[in-house]
Amino acid sequence: MEDKIKSGFLYDFYGELLTERQRSVYEMSVLDDLSLSEIADTLSISRQGVHDLLKRVDHQLEEYEAKLHLVEKFMNIRSDVISINELTKGQADAHTMAEISRLSSLILEEL
Amino acid sequence: MEDKIKSGFLYDFYGELLTERQRSVYEMSVLDDLSLSEIADTLSISRQGVHDLLKRVDHQLEEYEAKLHLVEKFMNIRSDVISINELTKGQADAHTMAEISRLSSLILEEL
Repeated sequence: MEDKIKSGFLYDFYGELLTERQRSVYEMSVLDDLSLSEIADTLSISRQGVHDLLKRVDHQLEEYEAKLHLVEKFMNIRSDVISINELTKGQADAHTMAEISRLSSLILEEL
Repeated sequence: MEDKIKSGFLYDFYGELLTERQRSVYEMSVLDDLSLSEIADTLSISRQGVHDLLKRVDHQLEEYEAKLHLVEKFMNIRSDVISINELTKGQADAHTMAEISRLSSLILEEL
């Protein structure tokens, strides 16, 4: 599950750096959930060709992340912000405020 | 000021996508604060050559941002997290908690 979320984030973050063809193959596969054969028919290329294109997309997205680490950074921030958001549903006391302060300081270090 | 911060962020975010030569020219200029002539001497190229390299770096960083908008996103998040952090220094009451809840929800939409 975590992997699927991460793969989606990778595409959200770096998808615009791919070529238009790469983006459309990725979207047919992951967003529209088409099979390799269906994509192959649509693009008039072989099933193997689609497979190779998708592998290259994954590889490129991973490569951008290996260089920039932005998805990792944003996922850490997201998890801390979710914790803050949860805390606001509890008691409004000094202990809660101290914990929110700690978490928000952590995020600012990450940013 | 805002511009200078943004330029630094652009480099922090996307610098790894530049070539090694582009990075070293950028760092000599912006981080080490060397003049065009000093950089030109170091690299044994013309002052104009350094100028062109720096322009191309700025252009490329702007181009990445135009595609990915990650610095903009990140600056918005940062500003909301700073507000949350400030709020934790005030009263621990329902009003403060509601405001922190609102801000953290805003961030989660952005993420």
